[in-house]
Amino acid sequence: MKKISSDKVIYTFKPKMEEVEKVLPDEIFQVETNDCFYGQIKKEEQLVTEVDFSRINPATGPIYVENAEPGDILKVEILDIELPEKGVIVTVPGEGILGEMVERAKTNIIEIDGDFCYFNGLKIPVTPMIGVIGVAPSDETGEYPTGSPWKHGGNMDTKDITVGSIVYFPVNQPGALLALGDCHAVMGDGEVCVAGCEINSKVTLKVNLIKRKKIEWPIVETKDSWMIVASGKNLEEASKEAVKYAVKYLETGLKISWDDAYMLSSMILDLKISQVVDPNKTVRAVIPKSILSLRNLFEKL
Amino acid sequence: MKKISSDKVIYTFKPKMEEVEKVLPDEIFQVETNDCFYGQIKKEEQLVTEVDFSRINPATGPIYVENAEPGDILKVEILDIELPEKGVIVTVPGEGILGEMVERAKTNIIEIDGDFCYFNGLKIPVTPMIGVIGVAPSDETGEYPTGSPWKHGGNMDTKDITVGSIVYFPVNQPGALLALGDCHAVMGDGEVCVAGCEINSKVTLKVNLIKRKKIEWPIVETKDSWMIVASGKNLEEASKEAVKYAVKYLETGLKISWDDAYMLSSMILDLKISQVVDPNKTVRAVIPKSILSLRNLFEKL
Repeated sequence: MKKISSDKVIYTFKPKMEEVEKVLPDEIFQVETNDCFYGQIKKEEQLVTEVDFSRINPATGPIYVENAEPGDILKVEILDIELPEKGVIVTVPGEGILGEMVERAKTNIIEIDGDFCYFNGLKIPVTPMIGVIGVAPSDETGEYPTGSPWKHGGNMDTKDITVGSIVYFPVNQPGALLALGDCHAVMGDGEVCVAGCEINSKVTLKVNLIKRKKIEWPIVETKDSWMIVASGKNLEEASKEAVKYAVKYLETGLKISWDDAYMLSSMILDLKISQVVDPNKTVRAVIPKSILSLRNLFEKL
Repeated sequence: MKKISSDKVIYTFKPKMEEVEKVLPDEIFQVETNDCFYGQIKKEEQLVTEVDFSRINPATGPIYVENAEPGDILKVEILDIELPEKGVIVTVPGEGILGEMVERAKTNIIEIDGDFCYFNGLKIPVTPMIGVIGVAPSDETGEYPTGSPWKHGGNMDTKDITVGSIVYFPVNQPGALLALGDCHAVMGDGEVCVAGCEINSKVTLKVNLIKRKKIEWPIVETKDSWMIVASGKNLEEASKEAVKYAVKYLETGLKISWDDAYMLSSMILDLKISQVVDPNKTVRAVIPKSILSLRNLFEKL
């Protein structure tokens, strides 16, 4: 199994990037990821205000997927997210949804053991997830720092990007150029203080292609749901984009009128907050597979 | 069992209102509610653009709860929400999150049978809920149309306000003056097109009081969670309020520092969208009882 080591990182998703590895469709490989601080914080005395900010949010890659061409969809199955023994969480004045109430920076080191992590005597079940995952953006949209989410993916900070899920991306450039990092042992919807339980990890993935099908925003498939993951300057803009495409998929997938698809969305779609703390905000529009029971969402596109 | 009939309605939650019924703490009673159109739409040929808008969002009540005094908390247990045989959903140009894409008003009548409703050949499980429920606002905040959510409750359109849940309200006026309406047979988080499956209903409730305890926003208790339900001009403002009080309850309930409570929120709290289509937007900050395992959230306040 190919392993892409954690020293091969990018800080910007650019339209043109040089790959550090090549993989084939159907290939299983492992990506070593850094935590969002590139491992700079090792003890509680170290505050985030002291770290080198040019090394925040490294994403390991880019990985060239053979045969991926602009106009395809890249399918990324998440097979495993390995947990280390420790994670870190921080607060910073001005950061997170209550940033103006934060008087000083603080760091907590969090023990992780099996299926739980430990914080202030509380035993918290882990829910491992990938914060940053994306592909090269299109020439039109241009480059994005790894800390920002957009149509190419990036810092989507979406809890459902977890083991057993599949993430679909629009392929904008030859080889797709996948990169990922910023895993969390646990994070709540919103990531309200700006950080989850930040960890380095080894992520096992399998990639594949859906040829000549177009999506606008990343889509996450779970056992029960299709999720359109959209971002915007604020939650309202992100919501509008996510719902717009959810309604479109219901319309084409169920062969009903746009108006009926819009009504149906209001009854069965859950609009969920992913994160409210990154440069763009992210939501996901969740369609139950019990309603849209396509073998794949893309067959009707 | 006392029954409050559906012709006794208000359209504004006012600080001073005359009650239509009095109930005692621990008393079980039934409230007949109208759908949000006051039953004006009975067939698909009737468009929402033709209804009398002065009769939108009626709330049955107000109900005076004996012994409720300003500075108490009103506890409302939802014991039953009866479903009628039909519901209605509408679209209106300019309304909902994709309002500018709606070309014409449309009405769909939805059959309800047992645990399911039927829309366009789809069988949708019902999830009965109360859209509008609230108490008299304080003299300071003044009156609110029943279509708006705020600190007194109102049009919170929150899915978890359902059978088996308990809703807690700040008591602002003698007798609390509870009123409710706008039930839905099914609605998704967001209520994106502006309506759910709108129904009239008979709602069975039990009220009680928590004396001399103060909350700022309504709180919903489910089997597994405490939910702070906050509203604001946009989702960001609503989110900030909801998280602010969630962090406060974690701080006082777990006796940890504010900074640690803020970090903990980022790991275990889910910030969920309730609705994005009313005059104020509503979110709920969801704290798992597995983390905040108080018998009641209020004992430490």
